[in-house]
Formats: sequence, C-alpha cells, structure tokens
Amino acid sequence: MKSDIILLGHGSGGRLSHQLLDELITPILSGIGPRDQNDAAVLDTGGGRLAFTTDSYVVDPIFFPGGNIGDLAVNGTVNDLAMTGARPLALSVGLILEEGLAIDDLRRILEAMRAAADHAGVRIVTGDTKVVPRGKGDKIFINTAGIGVFDHGPEISGRGARTGDKVLINGTIGDHGMAVLASREGLELASDIRSDSAALGVLVADLLATLGDDVHALRDPTRGGVATTLKEIARQSQVEITLQEDALPVAAGVAGACAILGLDPLYVANEGKLLALVDPGQAETALAVMRRHAEGHQAAIIGEVTATGSGRVFLNTAIGGRRTIEMLAGEQLPRIC
Amino acid sequence: MKSDIILLGHGSGGRLSHQLLDELITPILSGIGPRDQNDAAVLDTGGGRLAFTTDSYVVDPIFFPGGNIGDLAVNGTVNDLAMTGARPLALSVGLILEEGLAIDDLRRILEAMRAAADHAGVRIVTGDTKVVPRGKGDKIFINTAGIGVFDHGPEISGRGARTGDKVLINGTIGDHGMAVLASREGLELASDIRSDSAALGVLVADLLATLGDDVHALRDPTRGGVATTLKEIARQSQVEITLQEDALPVAAGVAGACAILGLDPLYVANEGKLLALVDPGQAETALAVMRRHAEGHQAAIIGEVTATGSGRVFLNTAIGGRRTIEMLAGEQLPRIC
Repeated sequence: MKSDIILLGHGSGGRLSHQLLDELITPILSGIGPRDQNDAAVLDTGGGRLAFTTDSYVVDPIFFPGGNIGDLAVNGTVNDLAMTGARPLALSVGLILEEGLAIDDLRRILEAMRAAADHAGVRIVTGDTKVVPRGKGDKIFINTAGIGVFDHGPEISGRGARTGDKVLINGTIGDHGMAVLASREGLELASDIRSDSAALGVLVADLLATLGDDVHALRDPTRGGVATTLKEIARQSQVEITLQEDALPVAAGVAGACAILGLDPLYVANEGKLLALVDPGQAETALAVMRRHAEGHQAAIIGEVTATGSGRVFLNTAIGGRRTIEMLAGEQLPRIC
Repeated sequence: MKSDIILLGHGSGGRLSHQLLDELITPILSGIGPRDQNDAAVLDTGGGRLAFTTDSYVVDPIFFPGGNIGDLAVNGTVNDLAMTGARPLALSVGLILEEGLAIDDLRRILEAMRAAADHAGVRIVTGDTKVVPRGKGDKIFINTAGIGVFDHGPEISGRGARTGDKVLINGTIGDHGMAVLASREGLELASDIRSDSAALGVLVADLLATLGDDVHALRDPTRGGVATTLKEIARQSQVEITLQEDALPVAAGVAGACAILGLDPLYVANEGKLLALVDPGQAETALAVMRRHAEGHQAAIIGEVTATGSGRVFLNTAIGGRRTIEMLAGEQLPRIC
C-alpha cells in the first residue's frame, strides 16, 4: 500500500478502491478475489445456487432529490443481486444510528426502505440496530445484505463479454451523483436533477427471459460511474470496449452541472442503471425490452466490444477524436452512496 | 416513541432497543416481527431452508484483551447462525472506514477476521468498503451478514422452551463486556479480564448431534447479557424461568470489577456464550458435551423453566432471596459490540 492511512479515495470505487481491495483486503480475506470482483458472490448451498451480496450506505445528505438513504440501500443491493441473473429474494438491514438522529427522519427512511422492498418484490427478513455517540457517526449508515435465487439459467457476471457484443445502458448517466452533489452543496442550478435510484430486478428478469444466453455480461455502474464499471468488465472479460460519446444519454441538467463543475458524467455514480453486453444480433431486441420498463425508456446502445485481450476502454468523442478511458482516480464525489 | 430523537440506550439491546424495534422498525419493515425476534431469519429458498442474519459492530475500543472488532464481527454472526441450529456457511463483510485509519490497524483487523472465519469453518465470500471523512465515523465499523444451512433437523429458536427444561450456559458470564469496558477506561484492576469472543458453531453442532430434539431453545446472551436474553426467551416461549445465583459462573476478576463499578454481571455482554434450554433428562449429557469443547469447559446448569405462561424470570439469590429479573433498562455499556 502506498499510503499508511486510509484516504477518502479508498472509498471512491475507482483506482484507489481497487488497490485497497487487491493489495490488502483480498489477499487476507480471500474468496473476495480479484478474479471474482462482481458485486455479488454465487454460492452452492447443497440445495441450490444462491447469490449473496452486501453494501453499506453512507450517503451525505441522507435525503436528496429522487430518494433517500433508505430506498438507495434497498435498490442498490437488489441491483447487485439482479446483475448476477438471480431473482432478489430477501434482505437484511443493519442500522448504525448516531445519537440525536430525529425519530421522524428515521421513520421516513424506514418507510422508504419498505416501499422500495415492496416495489422490488423482496422481503426484509432480519436486522440489527446499533447506536453510536454524537460525533462518532453521521446521522445514519445502513448496511443491506441480500440473497437471490436462480430460477433459470447460469449466473451472469462481468466475465462473459465477447468480441462484437453491443453495450447497452438503460437510460441517462450521472443522475444520482449529481443529485446528491447538488443537494449537498445547495446548488441552485441543479433543481431539476433527480437521483435515478431504482430497483432493476424486474427489468433484468425480462431481459433474461427474452434474450437468455445472449446476455453476456451485466453490471451496475455505481461508484466510479460508467467509465470505471466498463473498465472492470474489460479487465474481467479481457476484451477491448469502445464507447460512442454521442450515443451516451445525459440529461440536460446533469450535462450542464457537470460542465460548470468540471466533472465528466462518465465517472459520476448511477443507482438505477445497468450496463448490458449482449450478442449483436439481439441488441435491438434488448433495447426494446429495456424501453418497455419505466427504468429503461431512455435506453441506448452506447458502444461495442471491439477486440479481445487488452482490457482497455476507448471513447470515440463527438468531435471525431478517440481517447482512452481509465478508472476513476482519487475521490471525485465522496459519500455518494 | 417516547423520545423524538435516538438515544444511546436505543442501542443497548435492552428495554429501549426493544421499544424502538417494536414501535417503529418492526411495524414499518415487518418480517422483522416481535414474534420473530431471533437473531437470524429462516428462509425457504425453494431449494432448501437457510438461516440468514446480520450484525453491525461498532465496539470501542477496536482492540481489547481477548480480541478485536474483526474476530468479534465474525464470531458474532457465526453464533447468530448457530443459535438457529444451522451450520454457518458464508459471510459477507461491509467495512465503513474513517479517513485516517492506520492501514496497519486495518490489516490486523482483517487478519483477525480471516483467522476467526477459518477457525469457524466459514468462508468470507463478498464484501464492500466505504470511507467516511474524519469525524464522521470512528475508525472502523464492520457489518457481517451470514448464511447458514440446515444439515439435519428443524430450526431452533427462543420459542421452544418447556416447563421443566434445564437452563445451561457454556461458561463464565460478563467477560466480553468487562474486557471492553476495562480497556476503554484503562482500568488497572482488570488486567486479567479477557473477552470470551469465540465461535460456537462446532459446540452447537455437537450438542444437536448428541441431543437432537431435546435441545428446545438456544440464544446467545450478547448485548443486555444473560438477564435480557433469558427474558426474551421467557417472553417468546411464554414460560417462567428461575435462575440460581450461586450456580452462575463468574470469573473472579469480572466479579470484582463489577462490584467496584456497581454493575451486575447478569446484564454484561458475552460474545462466546450460549444459553441452552434442554430436556431435564438430558441436562447432564448436554453439560458433558459442552465441557469437552474449549468454549465450554466451565459450562454449568444455572436454572430451569418453572412454569408456563408468565414470561417472567426470577433469580434465587445466594442468600436465599428471590427477585424478579427485568430487561436491561437504558444503556449500561455503550458500544460493547
């Protein structure tokens, strides 16, 4: 490790996060291996295969346009399960509350969790609550772990991308990150920016039911954004991916805010988006499936797998250039989820 | 809710914790129901039954005699699974790190987690890491969720206690709580007090293999101590339990420290103990099984189920008195786990 203390960037989802994972956490805990860097594990329990995943949520502020830390914690874990091809079944909830948190705020957050769980068709089956003294936490942190079951077919991962695959996304990029940032900083410009926080289990189930094995890879581009997640897929699958900048759906408000703040929406977090790499012959069908869901009506084909072997990602820019896409370096937006 | 803000006592495991759960969290999230207040849920996944549980660990200090927050997080979740009768199979790990945490401290904690997982025979299969800015957390919080499978027999809970059952514990009470407190406060008196942090999966498996259905109830007396956990069992099973004070195993150092500080070891947290309520004809066998394990060589029969229906717990004191045992009120020792 280059640093002898934890830096904010170690939580970015980008390059420093990967370094912490690859150089410290994975070698010690194993099972969480560099070859297995999907957002959920797949287990054989004897009685069948399960997907199992966990995420802690420390977003600041806890309420933001389009959601709050509660629905975010449910949707995020539902999505990590869905990205494996599993049907999300049950969640656990671990609450770490700061002394002094308003009971009314806690109630609103719990109600959002319940509504999100009901909407996604998962049950919250077990939980734990801890309280830390004032100044030793920040209002509320939520961990959700989740279990999913495989109703049909093998699991999906970031490893299955093949040359020729088309890259699809189910809508606009960067909405969640910019909604949280705007809300945190009280930016006037951003009043129409809302988080995309949403559960994608139903959309994924439809996609798999329609395309079957022609869905080669699925990942949700959360921390680190579309750029970092595609870089992960390219590394896992050992392929080269090329994106078309002018095909990337970006909401006008997000594009404007990013321009003013000097941020690249490709690196801004999403919480209701997935990247699907599908057989090119099925790309238009996949697009049609996505577009019939509320979470996918702005779906687009944004690129393709252009070669094997390199692990690199390129962007063909709107003005005819071509640049290399790297993982997020440092901490662009702390505590985005 | 009587308070409109979160108090430290809401995290005690005692009366305020139950109130928060019963009046706010359970009615909203449901599934986490008052009739289902065991430490793990049992799910039917279609391919078999699973135990599923979660706990967040916020112990202060993170290193203490007998362990650290890492092995505690593994052992605690292993034990919650074991108390259902399930064989602990896999864990998830969610880390919330405070900016500035020493990498060396993180390494020691991860190594303790790995060693504890190896010792308990569980795999750590998935994880997540978040970082919060200085002053918004406290070094490290760890969530572990766990999955267990049922190799044989029905699940155990706190609901199965019957009149006549003997109450067993696998060793001395209050060690973990007093080790953490002594370490936190730098108490000189307590140099020989060590946390009992240990995984009980193997001991439980042996107990179930030997006694089978004669094990009627199992719970681990963590936050709130033996008193609060027996009160939970009495309520769940709708029985009256009577303890014998002079049968309670208490280490001399813990007894002395409790006397000086005015604490009752019955309410002090344990992290390697279980309460087993077993058929009276099998109590001596259960004792012998416990005593052949390192985690049980000071096992004792500490009481019995004396009636049905009341949900009350009594203590026959060493000097011939009889007093009612209630749940822990308020927050005796914050951040004990």
